[in-house]
Amino acid sequence: MDVQTYMLGIGKAARAASRAMAVADTRAKNTALTAMAAAIEHAAKVLLRENARDVEAAKAKKLDAAAVDRLTLTTARIEGMADGLRQIAALPDPVGEIGNLKYQPTGIQVGQMRVPLGVIGIIYESRPNVTADAAGLCLKSGNAAILRGGSEALHSNQAIAACVHEGLKAAGLPETAVQVIEISDRAAVGELITMQDYVDVIVPRGGKGLIERLMQESRIPMIKHLHGVCHVYIDDKADIDKALRIADNAKTQRLGTCNTMETLLVARGIAEKILPPLCKIYADKKIELRGDDAARAIVPGMKAATGDDWHTEYLDAILSVRVVDGLDAAIDHIARYGSQHTDAIVTEDITRARRFLREVDSSSVMVNASTRFADGYEYGLGAEIGISTDKLHARGPVGLEGLTSLKYVVFGDGQVRG
Amino acid sequence: MDVQTYMLGIGKAARAASRAMAVADTRAKNTALTAMAAAIEHAAKVLLRENARDVEAAKAKKLDAAAVDRLTLTTARIEGMADGLRQIAALPDPVGEIGNLKYQPTGIQVGQMRVPLGVIGIIYESRPNVTADAAGLCLKSGNAAILRGGSEALHSNQAIAACVHEGLKAAGLPETAVQVIEISDRAAVGELITMQDYVDVIVPRGGKGLIERLMQESRIPMIKHLHGVCHVYIDDKADIDKALRIADNAKTQRLGTCNTMETLLVARGIAEKILPPLCKIYADKKIELRGDDAARAIVPGMKAATGDDWHTEYLDAILSVRVVDGLDAAIDHIARYGSQHTDAIVTEDITRARRFLREVDSSSVMVNASTRFADGYEYGLGAEIGISTDKLHARGPVGLEGLTSLKYVVFGDGQVRG
Repeated sequence: MDVQTYMLGIGKAARAASRAMAVADTRAKNTALTAMAAAIEHAAKVLLRENARDVEAAKAKKLDAAAVDRLTLTTARIEGMADGLRQIAALPDPVGEIGNLKYQPTGIQVGQMRVPLGVIGIIYESRPNVTADAAGLCLKSGNAAILRGGSEALHSNQAIAACVHEGLKAAGLPETAVQVIEISDRAAVGELITMQDYVDVIVPRGGKGLIERLMQESRIPMIKHLHGVCHVYIDDKADIDKALRIADNAKTQRLGTCNTMETLLVARGIAEKILPPLCKIYADKKIELRGDDAARAIVPGMKAATGDDWHTEYLDAILSVRVVDGLDAAIDHIARYGSQHTDAIVTEDITRARRFLREVDSSSVMVNASTRFADGYEYGLGAEIGISTDKLHARGPVGLEGLTSLKYVVFGDGQVRG
Repeated sequence: MDVQTYMLGIGKAARAASRAMAVADTRAKNTALTAMAAAIEHAAKVLLRENARDVEAAKAKKLDAAAVDRLTLTTARIEGMADGLRQIAALPDPVGEIGNLKYQPTGIQVGQMRVPLGVIGIIYESRPNVTADAAGLCLKSGNAAILRGGSEALHSNQAIAACVHEGLKAAGLPETAVQVIEISDRAAVGELITMQDYVDVIVPRGGKGLIERLMQESRIPMIKHLHGVCHVYIDDKADIDKALRIADNAKTQRLGTCNTMETLLVARGIAEKILPPLCKIYADKKIELRGDDAARAIVPGMKAATGDDWHTEYLDAILSVRVVDGLDAAIDHIARYGSQHTDAIVTEDITRARRFLREVDSSSVMVNASTRFADGYEYGLGAEIGISTDKLHARGPVGLEGLTSLKYVVFGDGQVRG
C-alpha cells in the first residue's frame, strides 16, 4: 500500500472514531485511561524489551547521548506513564460543560458548550512517553488522535499503542480513537499535515527545524511552540533577595527547557548592587555570561554580547545580560527580541508590576516568580500537551481545555426571528 | 513604489500601532469611536458624493444589481454606520479582564488576562459599511486593523477611512491603528496574507471563491466562514405549531444569509402530518422544494432531490426535504452533509434535545428556535465581525471576545521552582 492510501485510511478511521469519542461518557473515558495504565504496568517487560531494540538501533546509528536518553524507557519511566494516565483520569471532564447561559430579549437562551476539536495529529520526536501522554489527553478531551512519533522509537511506540488499545477495548471505545502511524516514511508526515478533511489540528512537539518545516507545509491549523527566549527584568524597586533567588532559579534550575531565562535585564539603578552577587552565583554554577558594556563595566571578565545574543535561545549554560534604563526600556527590549513565551518582572512597585503585566505580550507574564513555573502542572491544568506561543486559540501551557473549543447552544420555545 | 514595499510599510506601521492600541485605555477607545461616528455623520455629503463615483463606475462595468445595492450608501446606511460605532463604544471593554485567578500549591497565583490578538487583516467585498464596522470592532478590542475592501468601493472606503482617522486623532490614538489599503492591485491581498511577521490573523468576509483562494494561499491563521448548509430536524415529538413556525422562518425570513435553512429533515412518524401544511406555506412563498422519495410520496409535485442537493447551500428560494427514520438518522445526515454552521431540532422530548445538542458538531446547535438567530446581535455579543465555522479559537458569531485571546498572568512573592 502506498503512503497516501495508508494515511487516508488512518484519517478516515480517525474521523469516524472522533464522533464516538465526542459522545463517550466520562465513565467510559476514565475506564479506558485506568485500563491503559494497568496494561502498561502489566506489559512492563515487553515495553523494556521492545525499547531495547530501538535503543540498540539508535546507538548503532550513533544518535547523540541526549537523544538516546530521551528514547530510553526505564521501570521508573514506565511507572511514570501509568501514573500520568491515572492523573488524567482524575481530572474533571471538560466536554459538555455549558457556560454563560443567558436569556436574550427575544426569549431565546444562549450559552456555550465545550466540545472536542475532533481529530488531533501529534508529531513528536523519539520520546516514547509522549505516546501515552498524548493518547491520554486526547482521549479525555473527547478527541481522536493520530500519533506520529520519531522513527527511532517505532517498536517502543507500537508496544505502548498495544496497551492503549487494550484500555480503549476494555471501555468499549473504538481502538481507532488512538492510532499510531506504523511506517517510518517521512512522507507520512506530509500526508498528515495536509489531510484537511480528516485532521482538525496538528500539535508538533519537537525541535525548531521540525516546526519550521511544518509551518511551511501544513494546511491544517497548529497548536505550536516555536522559540522560548524568556526574560527576567530586575527593576530598581526589586527586593534583592527575591531578585537573586528568581534570577538564579530561572536560569539554572534546568538549562534546556523552553521556559528557562535566556536574557537578564537589570535596571541601571540597581545594577551595581545586584549584578556582583548574582554573577557570583552564576560563576559558581558555570554559567557563561555575555553582557552589554554597562554590565561588563560592573562585572569584569564578562564576555561582550553581540546583537545576535539578544535573539538567541541558548538552551545551555549561557546567559545574556543587559543593563536598561528602566521599565520602558525593558518592555521595549522584550517586544523587540523576545519570543512571546514567558517573561517576568521582579519589583515591589505595584504600578510598574501592573504595567508589565498589561504591556508585555507573552503567553505567560509574571511578577516576582521564576519563569520556570510556566508549565501545565504548575498552573494547575493537571497535564499539558505542550506550550503554545501562538496568539489564536490557546496561549501558554495547553491542557485539556486547549484541546477543546466552544460551540453555541440555543434553547427556545418556538421563537422565530422577526 | 511596488506593491510589496507598500504592503510592508503598512504591516510595519500596523505592528507599531498595535502596541499602542493594546495599552490604550477604555476611555480613549470610546472617545475615538464616538468621534468617528460624529465625523461620519458630519461627512455624510462627502460620503454620498464619493460613493456615487464608485456606484457610477460599477454600473458602467455592468456589476449585477445585488452587488450595486451592497455598494450603495444612503443617508440611512450612513446613519447605520454611525450608530454601529456608538453601539460598540457602549459595549464593555474586553481587554485586560483577568479571570480564573487561583493560588497553586507552590504559593503562586495563576490567572488569565484577556488581550488583543495584535494586527488583524480584514479582506472584504465592496460593502463600504464593513469599513466602519470592522474598524470599530478591531479598535475596541485593542487591535490594529488593515482593511482591504473590494476595489469597486475604493472612493467610498477612503472617505470613510478619513472619518475613522479623525476619530483616532481626536482620542490621541495613532491613525495607523486603522489602515485602508489604497491600491486595488490584487497582489496586495497576496502580500497581506503572507506577512506573518506583521499580521496575526486574517478575517475574510466574502464569497466562497475568495475564501477558498485564501485557504490555499494564506500563511496566516484565519477566522473564517466557508459554507452554511443549515438544517432543521422536525422530530416526531415536535409541537406542530412550533415546527411550522420555525421551519417557515428558518427558510423564508431571508433567503440569502448563511444561517438560512437549506435542508429540512422530517421524522417519518410526523411527516404525513407536518409536510402538507408546511409545503403549502412554502408554495405560497414560491419556495421550490426538492424531496426524497418519501417526501414526494406525501407531497405530490415536489421535484426529486439529487445527491448534490444535500450538499448545496442554495442561498435562494430552494429547499431540499428528506424524510428520516428518526433522531439517529437526522444526526447522521447532518454529520455527513452539513457544514457545521447552524442546525436545529424541533422536539418536546428533552432526552432527544439533549442528544442533539451534544452530538451535532456545529458552531450553533439549537432546540426549538429558528436557525436565523445565529447572529452576534441576537446572541447578545453586541456586534460581530463574522461567523466562524472553524474549530480552533472562535466558533459561531465572532464579537469582541473573538478578536482577543487569553495570556497567563502569574503573581508571586519570590517563589522559585523546586
